[in-house]
Amino acid sequence: MGKVYLVGAGPGDPELLTIKAYRLLQNADVVLYDALVNPQILDIVPPSAERIFVGKRAGNHSRSQEEINALIYKYSLLYPTVVRLKGGDPFLFGRGGEELLYLTQRGIEVEIIPGVSSVFGAAASSFVPLTCRGYSSSVTITTGHPLEKMDWETLARSETLVVLMGVKYRREIAKRLIEFGKSPSEGVVFVENATNEGEKITFSTLGEVANNPPDVGTPALFIVGPTVEIGLQVYRSMLVGKSP
Amino acid sequence: MGKVYLVGAGPGDPELLTIKAYRLLQNADVVLYDALVNPQILDIVPPSAERIFVGKRAGNHSRSQEEINALIYKYSLLYPTVVRLKGGDPFLFGRGGEELLYLTQRGIEVEIIPGVSSVFGAAASSFVPLTCRGYSSSVTITTGHPLEKMDWETLARSETLVVLMGVKYRREIAKRLIEFGKSPSEGVVFVENATNEGEKITFSTLGEVANNPPDVGTPALFIVGPTVEIGLQVYRSMLVGKSP
Repeated sequence: MGKVYLVGAGPGDPELLTIKAYRLLQNADVVLYDALVNPQILDIVPPSAERIFVGKRAGNHSRSQEEINALIYKYSLLYPTVVRLKGGDPFLFGRGGEELLYLTQRGIEVEIIPGVSSVFGAAASSFVPLTCRGYSSSVTITTGHPLEKMDWETLARSETLVVLMGVKYRREIAKRLIEFGKSPSEGVVFVENATNEGEKITFSTLGEVANNPPDVGTPALFIVGPTVEIGLQVYRSMLVGKSP
Repeated sequence: MGKVYLVGAGPGDPELLTIKAYRLLQNADVVLYDALVNPQILDIVPPSAERIFVGKRAGNHSRSQEEINALIYKYSLLYPTVVRLKGGDPFLFGRGGEELLYLTQRGIEVEIIPGVSSVFGAAASSFVPLTCRGYSSSVTITTGHPLEKMDWETLARSETLVVLMGVKYRREIAKRLIEFGKSPSEGVVFVENATNEGEKITFSTLGEVANNPPDVGTPALFIVGPTVEIGLQVYRSMLVGKSP
């Protein structure tokens, strides 16, 4: 009976993989990976190991979580070292909890290898701290849907708010946050493909997003809050003294 | 004029450093590091490089943030590659925002290298996911002080709540969360020295913490919320079939 490692692959840039994740990938017998994992990271896996794509891609048939659970379990009976590789961190919207419960209830040993979440990758790339003395002393990380199930009153009272998987509904989200008390002048930054090729940073305000939202592709997340001002200041400083 | 890298050192285990942080430490001319950085990580720094401790230790004189800012700036004028190494991630309660602003306002180029936050290290070690379908769909990360400045009404309405630097006030925090509506039966997990030697996991409930709090040393953080149940279930599964 093997051991299953639920491993965070980080936000995208292969250099943002942890040393532990790198070592486990080199020693894996099988790697089951998601759509959000940078393909370059799979080059670390030895050619003798099996690589199994279990992610979701638009338009393709995708496996249910129950099927993925059963697949990981099957491989844990066949191989000593099973790596389940997930974009970001396995315990933040990664379905890591569900896989962990399924496997441990069947007597399989599981270890969680934390990773750099895309939230931290996006904050680093946009120069927008999640917290900063004098600006914000807490951060709330949430999904952007389903809209009708979210507690807008509480979310609107958060200091820094990070929304994952909510770009499609950015206009409705901004409207509700304003409706429940956030200022239309509150800063917003969208980060597409954080730390990956094609990374794109777009600064905006909640009012603008509610009325005339900027074009943003996916995968992306956005940060709302007072520290967005810091990112803007840094980008402004970087332009000083540069020719146009 | 040099470039300053604000680098996350991860939660403690040197293997949870990113590959990028490892490479930068190998090439650093000077490393300014905090108290929360595992000393083993400093072994990566070449002997020719300067290592400067700028952290806070109980009972010792510690440098003010203004002094640290000025010191990083001074070294950025002297050396090409300046690494400012911080426990966890530089943009979550790491004073990274303040150092970033200070340096960029003086024309210094800064890059942020995100790291694995201690929050994710603690979640992985305790088998307590930050979010999990059917349990919690958002997480709020906050400091535990100053108590009188915190918005208890909003914090008590959070789903998963992670409290950093709040172990000393755990009793008062639990009391206020209950007062503002959280159930005394809500699960709590304390994680001391996450991913480091001396790591210790203690499960409890909010009611117990308010009335008869368990002994917890620092550095530590705690997680409050419905996913604590998952960690308990996993530890229970791990005991099945083992001799006492």
